[in-house]
Amino acid sequence: MKPLVGIIVGSDSDLPLIKETTSILEKLEVPFEITIGSAHRTPDFVAEYVNTASARGIKVLIAAAGLSAHLPGVVASKTLLPVIGIPVDGGPLNGVDALYSIVQMPGGIPVASMAIGKSGARNAAVFATQILALADEKLAEKLKVYRQEMSESVKEKAKRLSEMGIEKYIDEKE
Amino acid sequence: MKPLVGIIVGSDSDLPLIKETTSILEKLEVPFEITIGSAHRTPDFVAEYVNTASARGIKVLIAAAGLSAHLPGVVASKTLLPVIGIPVDGGPLNGVDALYSIVQMPGGIPVASMAIGKSGARNAAVFATQILALADEKLAEKLKVYRQEMSESVKEKAKRLSEMGIEKYIDEKE
Amino acid sequence: MKPLVGIIVGSDSDLPLIKETTSILEKLEVPFEITIGSAHRTPDFVAEYVNTASARGIKVLIAAAGLSAHLPGVVASKTLLPVIGIPVDGGPLNGVDALYSIVQMPGGIPVASMAIGKSGARNAAVFATQILALADEKLAEKLKVYRQEMSESVKEKAKRLSEMGIEKYIDEKE
Amino acid sequence: MKPLVGIIVGSDSDLPLIKETTSILEKLEVPFEITIGSAHRTPDFVAEYVNTASARGIKVLIAAAGLSAHLPGVVASKTLLPVIGIPVDGGPLNGVDALYSIVQMPGGIPVASMAIGKSGARNAAVFATQILALADEKLAEKLKVYRQEMSESVKEKAKRLSEMGIEKYIDEKE
Amino acid sequence: MKPLVGIIVGSDSDLPLIKETTSILEKLEVPFEITIGSAHRTPDFVAEYVNTASARGIKVLIAAAGLSAHLPGVVASKTLLPVIGIPVDGGPLNGVDALYSIVQMPGGIPVASMAIGKSGARNAAVFATQILALADEKLAEKLKVYRQEMSESVKEKAKRLSEMGIEKYIDEKE
Amino acid sequence: MKPLVGIIVGSDSDLPLIKETTSILEKLEVPFEITIGSAHRTPDFVAEYVNTASARGIKVLIAAAGLSAHLPGVVASKTLLPVIGIPVDGGPLNGVDALYSIVQMPGGIPVASMAIGKSGARNAAVFATQILALADEKLAEKLKVYRQEMSESVKEKAKRLSEMGIEKYIDEKE
Amino acid sequence: MKPLVGIIVGSDSDLPLIKETTSILEKLEVPFEITIGSAHRTPDFVAEYVNTASARGIKVLIAAAGLSAHLPGVVASKTLLPVIGIPVDGGPLNGVDALYSIVQMPGGIPVASMAIGKSGARNAAVFATQILALADEKLAEKLKVYRQEMSESVKEKAKRLSEMGIEKYIDEKE
Amino acid sequence: MKPLVGIIVGSDSDLPLIKETTSILEKLEVPFEITIGSAHRTPDFVAEYVNTASARGIKVLIAAAGLSAHLPGVVASKTLLPVIGIPVDGGPLNGVDALYSIVQMPGGIPVASMAIGKSGARNAAVFATQILALADEKLAEKLKVYRQEMSESVKEKAKRLSEMGIEKYIDEKE
Repeated sequence: MKPLVGIIVGSDSDLPLIKETTSILEKLEVPFEITIGSAHRTPDFVAEYVNTASARGIKVLIAAAGLSAHLPGVVASKTLLPVIGIPVDGGPLNGVDALYSIVQMPGGIPVASMAIGKSGARNAAVFATQILALADEKLAEKLKVYRQEMSESVKEKAKRLSEMGIEKYIDEKE
Repeated sequence: MKPLVGIIVGSDSDLPLIKETTSILEKLEVPFEITIGSAHRTPDFVAEYVNTASARGIKVLIAAAGLSAHLPGVVASKTLLPVIGIPVDGGPLNGVDALYSIVQMPGGIPVASMAIGKSGARNAAVFATQILALADEKLAEKLKVYRQEMSESVKEKAKRLSEMGIEKYIDEKE
Repeated sequence: MKPLVGIIVGSDSDLPLIKETTSILEKLEVPFEITIGSAHRTPDFVAEYVNTASARGIKVLIAAAGLSAHLPGVVASKTLLPVIGIPVDGGPLNGVDALYSIVQMPGGIPVASMAIGKSGARNAAVFATQILALADEKLAEKLKVYRQEMSESVKEKAKRLSEMGIEKYIDEKE
Repeated sequence: MKPLVGIIVGSDSDLPLIKETTSILEKLEVPFEITIGSAHRTPDFVAEYVNTASARGIKVLIAAAGLSAHLPGVVASKTLLPVIGIPVDGGPLNGVDALYSIVQMPGGIPVASMAIGKSGARNAAVFATQILALADEKLAEKLKVYRQEMSESVKEKAKRLSEMGIEKYIDEKE
Repeated sequence: MKPLVGIIVGSDSDLPLIKETTSILEKLEVPFEITIGSAHRTPDFVAEYVNTASARGIKVLIAAAGLSAHLPGVVASKTLLPVIGIPVDGGPLNGVDALYSIVQMPGGIPVASMAIGKSGARNAAVFATQILALADEKLAEKLKVYRQEMSESVKEKAKRLSEMGIEKYIDEKE
Repeated sequence: MKPLVGIIVGSDSDLPLIKETTSILEKLEVPFEITIGSAHRTPDFVAEYVNTASARGIKVLIAAAGLSAHLPGVVASKTLLPVIGIPVDGGPLNGVDALYSIVQMPGGIPVASMAIGKSGARNAAVFATQILALADEKLAEKLKVYRQEMSESVKEKAKRLSEMGIEKYIDEKE
Repeated sequence: MKPLVGIIVGSDSDLPLIKETTSILEKLEVPFEITIGSAHRTPDFVAEYVNTASARGIKVLIAAAGLSAHLPGVVASKTLLPVIGIPVDGGPLNGVDALYSIVQMPGGIPVASMAIGKSGARNAAVFATQILALADEKLAEKLKVYRQEMSESVKEKAKRLSEMGIEKYIDEKE
Repeated sequence: MKPLVGIIVGSDSDLPLIKETTSILEKLEVPFEITIGSAHRTPDFVAEYVNTASARGIKVLIAAAGLSAHLPGVVASKTLLPVIGIPVDGGPLNGVDALYSIVQMPGGIPVASMAIGKSGARNAAVFATQILALADEKLAEKLKVYRQEMSESVKEKAKRLSEMGIEKYIDEKE
């Protein structure tokens, strides 16, 4: 199936984090492609990747980067597709630098910032799917199921907690 | 024309900021609706507003709030539509509180955070339009023009600066 | 005994922290109940839990959450009972995000924020008990004893330190 | 009527802010007393004020301070009554220092922190009333009305906005 | 004279700040050119400007930007010339976002960050001149004189202060 | 009378702030001297000033600086006299930069940091006097009176507030 | 020998850190005493300890605390002796809370803040000794030697580095 | 070969970090020297080292320091050579203190700040080389190759990722 979501990460050290993104896309059966491209080390490769994305059928782009994290903004400057940014945690500032760099985009060229690190990596997948689901009822249905499962899982845990009490619950979890 | 974008602000004191959002939507001829609803003061009104949004034809929701800024997350918890959050500047922390509260959503329920304040308010409109443009070629065309104008305007300024020099440029601008 | 304090946590990963809360409530013999509910994943479950709390005899609610930490505010929006919030440490921002989200509530809907993490989890129990003790002299007496013990324990340590000197004290403690 | 809420501020420069607190207490007809006492400049006066509060019939204490803001914690160390802290905005750090100092209390001696500045000053009054309302049904009723009015006011604004549109709404408000 | 320093600003609203840079370059008689180019709105213009800089004789590039401030990094990714970055103050985060975005460059593509705002704008000029002075003894001499004047001016003020006393000194200065 | 306290400020723009320091020293009749010296612009002047301080009879040094604020540390590196640092507020970071730079001295060369801005400027004078008072009973007596006056002034305000009520108190103060 | 420096820590968990302080005092042969006292858990013990300090011959007080860290300020409010504060690192905010709480004292009641954690613990000892050395030439001499040794040690390392090169130096150190 | 770059670190504990700097200089065959000097513990040694640097043929100075990190600024105050600062990560604030202290230099005496920690240590070497390459075509060529290799390495990884898929890529890397 042709990929609808294009993922680009600033460094291969970001891949374990981005695994959180791809796992959810796989679960929701959203076809995606993934590459590595640095805004600073391979600007031309990034430009070409982004410039051709739309023609390849990509509808949403996800870009992840840490530290000064220019990648999502640089991607956004070269396309009219929606760009979702994931601030990678790590480095001495633990991702606050990446968050500021990704979210504080000037007027006209938006990047949709997700949370720093793991939660953000997951939500990038969900948000991309929410966009795609606007034009795909089956996907909308899958999202609904995904959210129901999430909700059921919390309720299940609540039930188990009420049955077992906090001490036993913690013991079993460990 | 039936609104495609639903905007909800946490307080009417946010409206002057959100004017930046609506001006761009108007310019791009994206039909929208706007209301006031507080996650804490009128949770039921917010719930109802969001629950019925999809049925009303809304495709994208924009929520703006300051301080603890729970509104975008609360909106997102009640819909599968993409939700864009605008952290309102103001208050003693000047919007950092709102940014953290909007962007740091836990895995599963994404909010797409824009920049704090004016830039974010503008970009919420552009980003919503980018999503809608995936299914609307005329809108995609308008976005392209919008971005070209933006680009032309910067180049024009560069040209005037090179002609006038920095001192004269600043003088005339003031 | 019917619970007087209702505790709700955003995720079962918060339970080890919240054990600090329940241990003190147990020690002070304050009856409590505890459940898991997510402001975003199970908003309806949270609403129902809170809406029925007062009728169940609950007098004080304690809500713990991390990251964007909307739970305490969402709880507070649905009840007139006092709500105590515990910002859970963890995540790349280590709980500053949760603190801001919990403490910066807009005028009208208060949440009483405790410290981030362990100290806050403990103090939520003590503060809830202080509220209940206003109408329960026996509880007030227990609190008094609790505080005296705390005070005695510090004085005991001071005495041991003065007898042993700092080096021996540290050695024995390790 | 004998005061039930005791308010203490660290400096008379905090009084305009604390007017937000007393206005709401007056509106809700909660009798209160107010004084000025510095944790550092008049520690003995503060100690005496707090030590005698319970005997005077005070049920809840509210303490407001800026900068290093030790007052709420010092008050809490001398009483078993619930203590609510208001971090005063102002100074070069704009109240972040006061927030940290008030909220980060060590285990055993809680202070219930409200938001920095105006929202916090308001919520201290509401939260104190919520505590008192646990033992006073008329007060509970007043709180309910207060919150309904708040809710109605937001809905009214939403209605006016939908009738007038954003531009006219902003114009009239200014 | 052919410009040796190329200055590029992200927006014409940065020009009053950058006047601090150009004034010092003029004083030190360092020939420079200045243009406006946005990393996001006119990426191609920026790329071309930077790609041709070396051929035009430019030895040092200065880039100033605010908010997410990708410009200096984007410039650095396209040249081997030394790039000096000025984080523009302004916006709700007052330039901390711009600082992090400029200074936290990943390994391999350096940007030399100056201070946020005015001090940084001045020092960009001085630092650029220090680089050029390595190959230009006359320039080194001018820098030496510039620094001596700066030093003399401080000593003069110290002398006046010792003669007048602090009160009179402040009065005259105002 | 020979000065006992030596004050050095990084720039004459710091003098209005430092007036808070000198006023208290004058009130407490502590003889002092004041000069301007920059750690970076006039390092030799600073070195000489500090090197000769002890021989001139100076017992305590006070150094005030903003931004990167190296002055107090540079002063401390050249003397065994106690050095008190005042972080000057101002600049885009409003003195947090100066605070960190002054307070985070490495082991071995201490600087005693006061609060950022006005409170710090006042307390530098009080702290210097406290040091001098260890060897001067008259000065200790003056400090005692100073603190009593401070205490009385707070109590007086408390009394006025209790007589007038908060509204009238605020009105009269304005 | 009668102690001249009184050290008080907020909790016995601070003792390993404060060992850095006592080691240097021992090395410099400055007699000291040390106790544990909590501003919140044992306010009366702290008050008595401080009130009697001067009579016991104490000249300088050192107070260490973490989190909301009121101890140094509370100590300072009860004495005219110089008070040195050590912000203890640890807790979710890693000592920034303690730093703000200690350093941001309001005008009139100074606390001399040292660095957060280990460097601060060391410097509290050095700074206390610098104060005492004003009235004790032998101590001044010891301080001079202490600083010379520190200086020699750095120079020795520089010499070894120049002889061995960076690689071998690192290898041997590990 | 005579060293062109002079590196000075504040403490020998910074050497493992600075190894990142020297490795790149070695790779690019830029001759350098390295020493240890503390702005506070050995100010005279630092002064002498810097004063004689130019005469020794040094063209660029690199200074690394943590905590209050005055070293780069102190170095810059004594020379007209370009000074590059590396904020060392570590300590309770993890290098934010060092960053502010290094980058926030007042107007007139610039320090070129690199990123905190490892990225900064690497980039100091690259930036120094970029300066030297202005007058050395061979060096410019080496830099070009270095950057191409960096670019190739990213592209290689992208290729491998596209061949292997994310899961296998991560597995092999671990």
